[in-house]
Amino acid sequence: MTNAIVSQSGGPTGVINASLVGVIEQVHKQEQITNLYGAVHAVAGIVKEAFIDLKKIPSATLELVAASPSSALGSSRDKPDAAYCEKILAVFKKHDIRYFYYIGGNDSANTCHIINEMAQQSGYELAAFHIPKTVDNDLLVTDHCPGFGTAGRFVACALMGDDLDNRALPGVKIDIIMGRHAGFLTGTAALAKQREDDGPHLVYVPERPVTMERFLAQVEAAYKQHGRCVVAASEGICDEDHVTWAEKLADAVERDSHDNVQLSGTGALADFLAAQVKTKLGIKRVRADTFGYLQRSFAGLQRSTVDVLEARQCGRLAVEWSMSEASGSVAIRRLGDGADYGADYFRTELKNVAEKTKSVPDEYINAEGNGMTRAFIDYALPLVGELPKTEYLGTYPKI
Amino acid sequence: MTNAIVSQSGGPTGVINASLVGVIEQVHKQEQITNLYGAVHAVAGIVKEAFIDLKKIPSATLELVAASPSSALGSSRDKPDAAYCEKILAVFKKHDIRYFYYIGGNDSANTCHIINEMAQQSGYELAAFHIPKTVDNDLLVTDHCPGFGTAGRFVACALMGDDLDNRALPGVKIDIIMGRHAGFLTGTAALAKQREDDGPHLVYVPERPVTMERFLAQVEAAYKQHGRCVVAASEGICDEDHVTWAEKLADAVERDSHDNVQLSGTGALADFLAAQVKTKLGIKRVRADTFGYLQRSFAGLQRSTVDVLEARQCGRLAVEWSMSEASGSVAIRRLGDGADYGADYFRTELKNVAEKTKSVPDEYINAEGNGMTRAFIDYALPLVGELPKTEYLGTYPKI
Repeated sequence: MTNAIVSQSGGPTGVINASLVGVIEQVHKQEQITNLYGAVHAVAGIVKEAFIDLKKIPSATLELVAASPSSALGSSRDKPDAAYCEKILAVFKKHDIRYFYYIGGNDSANTCHIINEMAQQSGYELAAFHIPKTVDNDLLVTDHCPGFGTAGRFVACALMGDDLDNRALPGVKIDIIMGRHAGFLTGTAALAKQREDDGPHLVYVPERPVTMERFLAQVEAAYKQHGRCVVAASEGICDEDHVTWAEKLADAVERDSHDNVQLSGTGALADFLAAQVKTKLGIKRVRADTFGYLQRSFAGLQRSTVDVLEARQCGRLAVEWSMSEASGSVAIRRLGDGADYGADYFRTELKNVAEKTKSVPDEYINAEGNGMTRAFIDYALPLVGELPKTEYLGTYPKI
Repeated sequence: MTNAIVSQSGGPTGVINASLVGVIEQVHKQEQITNLYGAVHAVAGIVKEAFIDLKKIPSATLELVAASPSSALGSSRDKPDAAYCEKILAVFKKHDIRYFYYIGGNDSANTCHIINEMAQQSGYELAAFHIPKTVDNDLLVTDHCPGFGTAGRFVACALMGDDLDNRALPGVKIDIIMGRHAGFLTGTAALAKQREDDGPHLVYVPERPVTMERFLAQVEAAYKQHGRCVVAASEGICDEDHVTWAEKLADAVERDSHDNVQLSGTGALADFLAAQVKTKLGIKRVRADTFGYLQRSFAGLQRSTVDVLEARQCGRLAVEWSMSEASGSVAIRRLGDGADYGADYFRTELKNVAEKTKSVPDEYINAEGNGMTRAFIDYALPLVGELPKTEYLGTYPKI
């Protein structure tokens, strides 16, 4: 009879709570686990021993948790060093915790990895499992990450509506999308295209640097072709020297800062790009939005069914596998394409996932570096799920 | 045998196409109308005679239109003067158009009014009807406006998710919401509160000026009380001299502008307020989002059922009433409260709606001017519809 602990780390997603509930329901089936502690605010809650008794939560409440966005146990941005991990291990020993389930990104996999090695070195029997979670979809080994499909669904639906808005009131519209280093989430904007001339007409991912000159020339060309232009750009869009435009902007601002005004906020990159288009191309109606936290936490979104199911299954399997394996990260293997999409799951070593990140493969980005390929659409669509159909009459033949 | 014309004006909403389809389906029932012209891009399309034959659109397509956000006929920001209206009337005469249905806000009601008077003066028989539409909910006479409930649903769902996000990673979060002069849409943020300590903890509408000192003091107090603070503020939030903070900011920027940097973009107000909180209160984690066009055009939102039904009915009734009345605007009367909510419809004169706007009544705003009252919740909730339930475990009792 021993105890287990579960926690959630890093940025929330729309399905991280499905993984948590997957862990809880599977623990209920494991007789050797007496208590399941939910550590509040990730590693910070572990060292403070801020624990909730998760086995006592009624199943109706758990289903509400599974359906709620954000991290129901709270989160933390702490990246524990060796000393921090020693404290965590000491808490595990004090409470006879022999199973550690950690839902998060590559940093969380690394924390699992460090604690697992420390436990082995000190001869303390511990099973440490990482459950993948990230809207950025940038973990290695796994085909994709729980959280990505639902965030991608938000982005695709946002672009679908925004493109219709731009048809109604034409001009240039720039949308800034999360994902500083990996362009997977920005890429899902391309799923919004239903008709030949639908936006987004240009998609910029961090993997393809673009000079301001080329960016402006491409916006101008699309605007000439369509009489309007919708742009989806990653917050990590960068110049050819690989420095992001956001950083260059922040530098420029610091030189010019004064008492009341700061330019390095969330909306600054969008406003900067819009101002460039307006002043350099002389286009009158230019608008920009930064989608911000809505991408990961909007409570009114119909989530991706595939994403919800997979997130929950990853939680269940981490518990199941921890009964016979000392450590691991849950990874997803894709089976079948399109309507035949399916997935199975396999265990990979923590060190294979820890710290490293994945970028968007070359074959998913078009030759011009300003759009996604058919291969990317085929990759992402089953994860995002079928999108709503829309109709626009303004382009119908005139009488 | 005569003809009719319909068009959509101003900012798109989530249900303006339901009103359009309401017009089309009712026209199909009126034998005296031969052709129904859809003018593309509002008044601009009327004078250019850019017409679509709306009676030829199959009903399956019409249902897709009704379900799509944005304005399916395109829109325009033109505010026609007398000369422009003369051109419109000339086009009506040329095509024997005797019924004019215009879906829009108070400016559209005014356009209807001007054209109606011109037609009377020249002895041209015309029925001109305005169909209300605005996310701002600021039209006179009607209890509320089609478009408001669905936009309010977006805002409430956004705040629900954002508040959970802020619980997971605590700090100050500022969300900027549409509505420059009327605070109805910003007020719907208050519907997100399910639990006693849920955000938004502060709601600022344009109707209640607030000095920067008082704003900061209230943020500080809420942060001390909850260990975090979620703020919903209108883009029209203003200082005690009734000048908006956005305008003051733009002025400050103009004084400091240089080649590459502009501060007057969409995200500037949010970033400015966040910077004030960060520097003046010394709070470390401060974030800000500007919801932007997603509020009116997001394609992934489950819309308000009441809003969808009422928008469509307003379209139908404009056509029905135009058979016996020369002009009017469709208005909604509320019947019953809460679960007993119902509505009926009545005709009001165009001049009662034209140009003027409504503000949030005093009894809907709390005494401190930083939150909404129970009376506002009772007013808005039936229009927005039942909201998703969420759960957060981090505040459960610790072991």
